[in-house]
Amino acid sequence: MNNAELENGSAGVVTKQFFTFAEPPNTFTLESGASLSPVTLAYETWGQLSKNRDNAILVAHAFSGDSHAAGFYPDDPADAKPGWWDSMIGPGKGLDTNKYFVICINILGGCMGSTGPSSINPETGQPYGLDFPMMTIGDIIETQKLLLEHLGISTLHGAIGGSVGGMQVLEWCVRYPDKIRSAIPVASTMRHSALAIAFNEVARQAIMVDPRWNRGNYYGSDGPDLGLAVARMIGHVTYLSDEAMRRKFGRRLQDKENFSYGFDVDFQVESYLRYQGTKFVERFDANSLLYITKASDYFDLVNRNGSGPSLMELTSAQTKFLVISYSSDWLYPTYQAKELVQSLKRASQDVSFCEIEADCGHDAFLIPDKRLGTLIGGFLDGVSRN
Amino acid sequence: MNNAELENGSAGVVTKQFFTFAEPPNTFTLESGASLSPVTLAYETWGQLSKNRDNAILVAHAFSGDSHAAGFYPDDPADAKPGWWDSMIGPGKGLDTNKYFVICINILGGCMGSTGPSSINPETGQPYGLDFPMMTIGDIIETQKLLLEHLGISTLHGAIGGSVGGMQVLEWCVRYPDKIRSAIPVASTMRHSALAIAFNEVARQAIMVDPRWNRGNYYGSDGPDLGLAVARMIGHVTYLSDEAMRRKFGRRLQDKENFSYGFDVDFQVESYLRYQGTKFVERFDANSLLYITKASDYFDLVNRNGSGPSLMELTSAQTKFLVISYSSDWLYPTYQAKELVQSLKRASQDVSFCEIEADCGHDAFLIPDKRLGTLIGGFLDGVSRN
Repeated sequence: MNNAELENGSAGVVTKQFFTFAEPPNTFTLESGASLSPVTLAYETWGQLSKNRDNAILVAHAFSGDSHAAGFYPDDPADAKPGWWDSMIGPGKGLDTNKYFVICINILGGCMGSTGPSSINPETGQPYGLDFPMMTIGDIIETQKLLLEHLGISTLHGAIGGSVGGMQVLEWCVRYPDKIRSAIPVASTMRHSALAIAFNEVARQAIMVDPRWNRGNYYGSDGPDLGLAVARMIGHVTYLSDEAMRRKFGRRLQDKENFSYGFDVDFQVESYLRYQGTKFVERFDANSLLYITKASDYFDLVNRNGSGPSLMELTSAQTKFLVISYSSDWLYPTYQAKELVQSLKRASQDVSFCEIEADCGHDAFLIPDKRLGTLIGGFLDGVSRN
Repeated sequence: MNNAELENGSAGVVTKQFFTFAEPPNTFTLESGASLSPVTLAYETWGQLSKNRDNAILVAHAFSGDSHAAGFYPDDPADAKPGWWDSMIGPGKGLDTNKYFVICINILGGCMGSTGPSSINPETGQPYGLDFPMMTIGDIIETQKLLLEHLGISTLHGAIGGSVGGMQVLEWCVRYPDKIRSAIPVASTMRHSALAIAFNEVARQAIMVDPRWNRGNYYGSDGPDLGLAVARMIGHVTYLSDEAMRRKFGRRLQDKENFSYGFDVDFQVESYLRYQGTKFVERFDANSLLYITKASDYFDLVNRNGSGPSLMELTSAQTKFLVISYSSDWLYPTYQAKELVQSLKRASQDVSFCEIEADCGHDAFLIPDKRLGTLIGGFLDGVSRN
């Protein structure tokens, strides 16, 4: 890190930390009724927690994200990329670490340090696999709350997240409306649509038909890498937009002037998808994909199936909402953001809404864009003034 | 068939016929330079060919279709469904068999009677598998033309087709503009977009990573049924629309009141997709899917990569075009139909355009809808009058 980088708002060096709870004989009970013991959460923080412990902002990551939202690890090589939302987190950025204590927690069910299906089941000494209990977005929030309490944070200044992260933000608001002053769901939805469930189900099937998946029991041997790569390819198509793909790839051929007249890569878009699939396999656990996509599919703030309060019961809360959508996001389209806004207004909430014009689809929230930072910075300042 | 059905415009009983050409020592040369010998095409016809042999209309089927576009086979059970476009073909229907001789041909590379990768390679006595040469939409048209010539049809009154069928219609127009009086591409495009290529590539990968695919050499043993089912599920999501899925499935649960908290079917949309995948495996060959999707991906009437004339060279033709799109089709969206219309107009063609409002996505053209029949019937009558 040199001075130029610091002046440029670098989030700096960060260390992954761990918090373990529900240690035997205690257990953590999930929405399904199942229980886990113990539970570890990996997390990272940026900025300083204020004396009153009232400046914490939770960054909730999307399904394949992790706690490394910004900055670098101490042992990163010189050419390492910073965390996944480095453009948003740092001094003077949208989530200004001169003002806020930012925390990002790898979600329950993940595979980046938090307890998930690849963790050791203490009852067997082997990885859980499918013995890991199904968890919900609500369960993720309950674990996050325990970690925040451990850090002495009883109230969040705000929570922000894109995609599945946005669902976590909203779940926070309906479960603990008095413990969250502001909420910024980005490129998200108040209930998973049939289309989104459909894509998740196809991705799951791609993994589950891979014989190496072996009903989730593949740890220590070759895993379902091929199925997982196909699942990621499906995901990647849904994260982009028709326009972005036209602009980025069009019908350009890969390293050749003529068609191969075979099943090798002809088009750049094919090469891109295969690369994304292969790269993902190196860093993500197939069972985690199954569990986290299922948790998103279950997410529904309107019909709660008996699990927690609904959005309509939010009448007493004082949370300020900023709902953000992207014009070319067809996974969680703007009309779904507007449905959320209308539901929040019917529940007498203080809600602002912004659709950002961008042609890059659902993934737009991950792409550095000053507009998002400015919007969020201004909104959070307004919350602070109130 | 009873009288009520006949009065109701039934297409009646139809028999699948076969035409074989390029028998040794002759061969059929494909665009790639490879050759095939012999080539068989399966086809079905409805209505009577006029004395002048000038009332033929080619129905070009979509990628998983076949020659059985309407009516019933003689040995169909009482509860059999009619052909896939029975709503469009028959006395008094959009393609009025009192006026026109309608013909539908299973495409080269298919698996419903025409020569494809599951056919016997005479050189080995075994199914071709991946030894089948890669074919293009242009190759499909050349085989169709040979069959029509065999039937004594030198000029088509019209050609119509949805999706990949629409590509065939357009390819006919640029290859043989003087042999086709009218063309109706429906829910189609003049070049396959990056998004469409991406979905096809993911579907192909789903098949090719199935170990039972065995590099295409699976005939006589268990084939890549699981991979093929996943490929079909991907396809089905793209054939529907967000709106249609909301209306048809929403977040309704399948046969239960609560979540399973497992990886069995929870939502109706999951059950629907799994069913579509399984059903498809019973009737379709995985290698045919690979070849036909690749032929669609290669389709580009603008940049021809040296293969045949481009759309811009169409200046002398007299073909009348009716381009039809569906408002909720996101695989071949209306903007692509408009690009086609503009290109045709720049090439001084006689072109009409209609976007049909429908919420059911790309598959809308397969769903009985009087509007499509009326539109097409009126257009074809106009062509006849000229």
